[in-house]
Amino acid sequence: MTEFFPDVPQIAYEGPSSKNPLAFRHYNPDEVVDGRSMKEWLRFSVCYWHTFRCNGSDPFGAPTLDRPWDDGSDALDNALKRVDVAFEFITKLGAPYYCFHDRDVAPEGSSLSESHANLDAVAAKLKEAQDATGVKLLWGTANLFSNPRFMHGAATSPNADVFAYAAAQVKKAIEVTHSLGGENYVFWGGREGYMNLYNTDMKRELDHLARFMHMAHDYAKEIGFTGQFLFEPKPKEPTKHQYDFDAAACLNFIRQYGLLDIVKLNIETNHATLAGHSMMHELEYARIQNSLGSIDANTGDMLLGWDTDQFPTDIYLTSQVMLVIMAQGGLAPGGTNFDAKVRRESIDPVDLFHAHIGGMDTFARGLKIAAQIRADNALSDFVKERYSSYDSGIGRRIEQGQASFSELETYMLEKGEAAPNQSGRQELLENIINQYI
Amino acid sequence: MTEFFPDVPQIAYEGPSSKNPLAFRHYNPDEVVDGRSMKEWLRFSVCYWHTFRCNGSDPFGAPTLDRPWDDGSDALDNALKRVDVAFEFITKLGAPYYCFHDRDVAPEGSSLSESHANLDAVAAKLKEAQDATGVKLLWGTANLFSNPRFMHGAATSPNADVFAYAAAQVKKAIEVTHSLGGENYVFWGGREGYMNLYNTDMKRELDHLARFMHMAHDYAKEIGFTGQFLFEPKPKEPTKHQYDFDAAACLNFIRQYGLLDIVKLNIETNHATLAGHSMMHELEYARIQNSLGSIDANTGDMLLGWDTDQFPTDIYLTSQVMLVIMAQGGLAPGGTNFDAKVRRESIDPVDLFHAHIGGMDTFARGLKIAAQIRADNALSDFVKERYSSYDSGIGRRIEQGQASFSELETYMLEKGEAAPNQSGRQELLENIINQYI
Amino acid sequence: MTEFFPDVPQIAYEGPSSKNPLAFRHYNPDEVVDGRSMKEWLRFSVCYWHTFRCNGSDPFGAPTLDRPWDDGSDALDNALKRVDVAFEFITKLGAPYYCFHDRDVAPEGSSLSESHANLDAVAAKLKEAQDATGVKLLWGTANLFSNPRFMHGAATSPNADVFAYAAAQVKKAIEVTHSLGGENYVFWGGREGYMNLYNTDMKRELDHLARFMHMAHDYAKEIGFTGQFLFEPKPKEPTKHQYDFDAAACLNFIRQYGLLDIVKLNIETNHATLAGHSMMHELEYARIQNSLGSIDANTGDMLLGWDTDQFPTDIYLTSQVMLVIMAQGGLAPGGTNFDAKVRRESIDPVDLFHAHIGGMDTFARGLKIAAQIRADNALSDFVKERYSSYDSGIGRRIEQGQASFSELETYMLEKGEAAPNQSGRQELLENIINQYI
Amino acid sequence: MTEFFPDVPQIAYEGPSSKNPLAFRHYNPDEVVDGRSMKEWLRFSVCYWHTFRCNGSDPFGAPTLDRPWDDGSDALDNALKRVDVAFEFITKLGAPYYCFHDRDVAPEGSSLSESHANLDAVAAKLKEAQDATGVKLLWGTANLFSNPRFMHGAATSPNADVFAYAAAQVKKAIEVTHSLGGENYVFWGGREGYMNLYNTDMKRELDHLARFMHMAHDYAKEIGFTGQFLFEPKPKEPTKHQYDFDAAACLNFIRQYGLLDIVKLNIETNHATLAGHSMMHELEYARIQNSLGSIDANTGDMLLGWDTDQFPTDIYLTSQVMLVIMAQGGLAPGGTNFDAKVRRESIDPVDLFHAHIGGMDTFARGLKIAAQIRADNALSDFVKERYSSYDSGIGRRIEQGQASFSELETYMLEKGEAAPNQSGRQELLENIINQYI
Ligand SMILES: [Co+2]
Ligand SMILES: [Co+2]
Ligand SMILES: [Co+2]
Ligand SMILES: [Co+2]
Ligand SMILES: [Co+2]
Ligand SMILES: [Co+2]
Ligand SMILES: [Co+2]
Ligand SMILES: [Co+2]
Repeated sequence: MTEFFPDVPQIAYEGPSSKNPLAFRHYNPDEVVDGRSMKEWLRFSVCYWHTFRCNGSDPFGAPTLDRPWDDGSDALDNALKRVDVAFEFITKLGAPYYCFHDRDVAPEGSSLSESHANLDAVAAKLKEAQDATGVKLLWGTANLFSNPRFMHGAATSPNADVFAYAAAQVKKAIEVTHSLGGENYVFWGGREGYMNLYNTDMKRELDHLARFMHMAHDYAKEIGFTGQFLFEPKPKEPTKHQYDFDAAACLNFIRQYGLLDIVKLNIETNHATLAGHSMMHELEYARIQNSLGSIDANTGDMLLGWDTDQFPTDIYLTSQVMLVIMAQGGLAPGGTNFDAKVRRESIDPVDLFHAHIGGMDTFARGLKIAAQIRADNALSDFVKERYSSYDSGIGRRIEQGQASFSELETYMLEKGEAAPNQSGRQELLENIINQYI
Repeated sequence: MTEFFPDVPQIAYEGPSSKNPLAFRHYNPDEVVDGRSMKEWLRFSVCYWHTFRCNGSDPFGAPTLDRPWDDGSDALDNALKRVDVAFEFITKLGAPYYCFHDRDVAPEGSSLSESHANLDAVAAKLKEAQDATGVKLLWGTANLFSNPRFMHGAATSPNADVFAYAAAQVKKAIEVTHSLGGENYVFWGGREGYMNLYNTDMKRELDHLARFMHMAHDYAKEIGFTGQFLFEPKPKEPTKHQYDFDAAACLNFIRQYGLLDIVKLNIETNHATLAGHSMMHELEYARIQNSLGSIDANTGDMLLGWDTDQFPTDIYLTSQVMLVIMAQGGLAPGGTNFDAKVRRESIDPVDLFHAHIGGMDTFARGLKIAAQIRADNALSDFVKERYSSYDSGIGRRIEQGQASFSELETYMLEKGEAAPNQSGRQELLENIINQYI
Repeated sequence: MTEFFPDVPQIAYEGPSSKNPLAFRHYNPDEVVDGRSMKEWLRFSVCYWHTFRCNGSDPFGAPTLDRPWDDGSDALDNALKRVDVAFEFITKLGAPYYCFHDRDVAPEGSSLSESHANLDAVAAKLKEAQDATGVKLLWGTANLFSNPRFMHGAATSPNADVFAYAAAQVKKAIEVTHSLGGENYVFWGGREGYMNLYNTDMKRELDHLARFMHMAHDYAKEIGFTGQFLFEPKPKEPTKHQYDFDAAACLNFIRQYGLLDIVKLNIETNHATLAGHSMMHELEYARIQNSLGSIDANTGDMLLGWDTDQFPTDIYLTSQVMLVIMAQGGLAPGGTNFDAKVRRESIDPVDLFHAHIGGMDTFARGLKIAAQIRADNALSDFVKERYSSYDSGIGRRIEQGQASFSELETYMLEKGEAAPNQSGRQELLENIINQYI
Repeated sequence: MTEFFPDVPQIAYEGPSSKNPLAFRHYNPDEVVDGRSMKEWLRFSVCYWHTFRCNGSDPFGAPTLDRPWDDGSDALDNALKRVDVAFEFITKLGAPYYCFHDRDVAPEGSSLSESHANLDAVAAKLKEAQDATGVKLLWGTANLFSNPRFMHGAATSPNADVFAYAAAQVKKAIEVTHSLGGENYVFWGGREGYMNLYNTDMKRELDHLARFMHMAHDYAKEIGFTGQFLFEPKPKEPTKHQYDFDAAACLNFIRQYGLLDIVKLNIETNHATLAGHSMMHELEYARIQNSLGSIDANTGDMLLGWDTDQFPTDIYLTSQVMLVIMAQGGLAPGGTNFDAKVRRESIDPVDLFHAHIGGMDTFARGLKIAAQIRADNALSDFVKERYSSYDSGIGRRIEQGQASFSELETYMLEKGEAAPNQSGRQELLENIINQYI
């Protein structure tokens, strides 16, 4: 069998002192951290679209990336060959999962039925490759934004035929995900939003989007697909404003339309920050609403206003992410999907390895740091104590729903002034975090 | 009786050609637009805090504004005198409403009971002034952020005593609002958020905030206050992140905690844009969820990252605002409250008049423009046609919940491709808007 | 001769009350405003790249725009045919100028000499079309960013061959611009910046960029091209950070490297705002340094962080732009180039007309408004008075360089405190502007 | 002598494994790194304004910070007592320097001469304290923004008297800085910018600002003050737009007005990011223009749009800062001034220690990391190689000014295409940095 990365060996764990750029310095899959292996905690996934389809083009320039195996065409043969590339890569990297959009793996045909057939052909090969390698499918999804038919949205298109087309495409994508043992199915809006309010009926569009998700759920039940549905927030880009703006907008939608039992969130760092939130905020906000399903692990450039989808290399970020994930006992059936792409100037195939190794090591460090912080109760003791006034007395009555405004007024009129506040100790806590970095 | 603005006459409507800076060129209160007087559509309100308490200080500098009537003290006498100033101003301006925070109108005392007494004293004078002038109270609220006791939040403080204090304060503020005939009661978070996630229990804080609102509602029922409760979104400032980030975050909270029948939104332009949304977006989003209660009319500087609370002078903005407000048949019992302050360098009392006249005229133009756009169906015909594929056939089946993924796939497999999309015509629609400006 | 826009007539001025979407309501080319025709003041230019090469693709989707004349290929025939389309469009629109990048008008060949030959072939046809229609070339430029060879920059590439290639390309572009009577030549950085500081030698890159511009100037002198060189600021996108960040960064570079007599600025609205400045700021800042050369007329979306290049439709914006342009007595030899593209969803050829008509009318209104403001001295009287303390006494001594710190201290020790400040009157001035809108 | 921080011992270096929050884990002043002691490399300075004058007030709330030694008044006695507090703090912390604004250390009097006298009185005590402790003055400056007289700016005020007042104040501040052995003198604009362009004469304001700096320099020469003048960029806040927007705007101004030999830059992290630049960018940009003078060490919150002035705790940031500082062989006579304040909720005096210890340790780690990266040539080898095409051949001819456009065209016409580009290796370089973190 052809080897596509002949100069790259199986990536091995060599420990923190290794200077080998093609080795893990921190990610040691079977190393146990807080009762579970790194592999189980992290559940890494390689994304098919960026890693195997990204060509380095940007709005101002043509493709740059050197991918000798790829003829650049949308032919089925090229797509099938790419499966071999992908599984060699994923296997050498040692990631247990991958994710895909339907149109990333298989070419769009000249009709819907041809597109279905193409997807079936590639899915068969993906199945073989999964079986041969043990790599599993974290989630599948449908690309409802690249084709011009989706210019005005998919489920929120003003064109009912486009809704129908999207429905047919998602039906198929769920089937394929199901047949490949996918553990989740993701909805990312793409163009489910608007460019301009002057031409938009927001109510009608949101109603349609909800209907779409309910239909998807009905169909999943029908075929016995029990994977988790995930909704991925993103505030803008490609459209001016997307309905899945952030976790709050998604959850409000989910609640409004009776989808709370059906859909959780897939949260991406770069989308969080574009919406004005830290990744830790979005994760914690979803977690406490029992809606944190999975993450798209990447990072943005905080000085840029678009989705740069860079590989995560900031240890503070991954430590914060892992603190939340560990607080909910892990992400399964979700995982840590590298929805990230190499820079357009990182043109060599080996750069794909550098990028993923960096991301995985950064998450492994984040895991170890978070585990240690948790083991030491370095933050939790402080937080517990900080809210302890609610554990008894008037605070307890408040929490238990026993107090009323009248009771509280009487209490405070007698007392005259509230008990003194305690320092928030932000600087000390930041110093403590640095002890673990 | 002393006159505080001796050089300013009653502000009169003089028509578009007037060059008198102390006259309305567009706001003509009794002029009927689309079946209702301007006064009824616009329901203007002067805010007490900025207009009568702002002194021009900023984080880098001391007070600048020349307010000869004010001795700068927090004495009750000074507060009572300020009522006269306020009602002279509001009356000369011809605004039908005002709004206040408890601590804007009356000084905080050395104990809660003294604060209550101070507020009662001023409220009595406000009542007199309302009766004498016919000016009414649009809404009241409590300041739960200025006093150091609220440094960590009020209802979301980790200090249960602070929750209790806030409860006592809001109880009183609702009573006073009720006694003054206030038509709404507003919650603005202030510090209901966090500075840092390391020291924060977000779940516990949100639970407390919901409990607080339910208690407020219980108490309002108890005393027969039937005004509308309003929740005002703001993403950040003073805290790093606020729970009432935007309309979506507020509505998700409201739904989650069973407050949907109790609380609507008070939406402010500058808060919308700080959260990454246009004002028109926030209004429309709230409107279609039947949750648009009232507006804080101001504007921010799109190149600055803090709440500048400038007076609205952009006719595009006010036209967009009025398009949404007219679409829901007006704002009552809400209104258009100028939560805006003169620039720190606009030091003369007369600048307060310039600012409000500008804001009112800009809204009056927005109203006339929106009315004409609506009369001509200049946007609505386009929008109706744009979604017409959902009015029959497959679109209608989708909207009515009759279609399934399987039916839609069959339909599209037969058809092969969706019907062509139509141009979104954004440029044409923007040109059309300009025909009305 | 084939007509490419058969349904679109010559666009005529029909006056403000016209409802014809394919007519000017304000732009009346020969109407005299403040001593000069609108045409002379505005010097409108259609840009070739967006208007004739944009296909509606974006980072998330394929081309959408319906351009029946274009086979989508990079063939020379297709390029030649496009010249006919362009000149029919420009002529029907009535714009006196156009602008182009070399690679917009003619395809890149398989070698530099082939590219040169292609450009010559198209240039010959452009010349004919100019002669036939009277349309003139405002400026030419070279595309030094689309081809992968420019991935690391052109004049700032770490690859010296790429510098050489760029030099050859610009040499040719200057020649063609010269032969077509182009009145200016523009440098827009494209990728003259960096993606990451870890791999960048900023000093060496800036030195190279300066050398490049000096070489360009030397060559222009050599061939007798006397058009104005223009440098176009843009802060970021496609690179993370560009050396031509804003007017200040460009002017600092220009001063540092002795280019002040050679290069002025071409300022674009969307680039100004992405850099954190208002368009009016950038224009005024360049103007007072005698460096305002030309403008790229467009607008961004203030809530989006990328270069949306929308057509300008905001009358406030164009009024501000024209206030600065009139203050310097016009832009010639520069002009008003619509570096703007129709939205991806505005798919019909006629949308190109809507877009340009809207932009031209909006600028025409801006011109008329600015002229009236100037005629009335509505702002200038206030400003003159505001600084009048520098017209005599101590202020005059300061301005004339006669005062020293010691003299000023003595003056102020005697006086004790400065004369009172006057109100900045921002709200009044904004109201006055609204009287003209 | 009263001790103001009785519970805080002298802060000692205890090494990385220490869990003592009141010890250094990394900053070991006499430890030699790359040939110089940490103390010499880092030249830490405590700022008087935030650390001893900040009271925790913000635009939405009253002072919160517990400072038992301070009576909150502006009395001279209180100011003198504060000197004792400051020097106890600085001494216990072990910082070798401090910085101040005139009005931070001494109260403004009722006339300029009284203000002068107050400053003299405090300066005398500062001198004593310096002598007694060995703590030195890194720089002095004048507060030209807090007093209402500066509402429209100081040197750029439209009120000539205000210019004169500012001149007198800066004259005095330079004298005091000189007498205290200050090694630099800083200009931070404060309000040297505008709120609105409608009322602003930008040209006249910039001319005045330049005149002011020349006068300052003339006076310094006159009295023999040879400290370095420093100009501190900040884009906005308190004004809408400041003339010292960023390093580029400052340097353009400095060049334009002939100040290049006189003035260098004092660069602050939070100001860099508010202007859209990374701190590393601003430092490197200034360094290569020989204009990097000193730094204000803090950090902002990248999701907030105002100057939060937080203590730096991010090791990536400090490593990048130290890479640039080491590249220019240190900052002297400049230093690392903590222009940072504890959060409003960090109310205890001990929080001041936590904050500074964290900042110093984070910089010490940055120093050690940068030194190791430099020792290993971990970045520099890559960069040198990356630009090596300019070290010989055509590249060398370009750099040496020998090549012309014609020569380069000939060269490339023969070659046909540029030599291939190399990968930018951003991901690998980021991984390498992580090996040092
Ligand atoms: Co994603
Ligand atoms: Co993304
Ligand atoms: Co408000
Ligand atoms: Co506000
Ligand atoms: Co441009
Ligand atoms: Co642009
Ligand atoms: Co500073
Ligand atoms: Co700062």
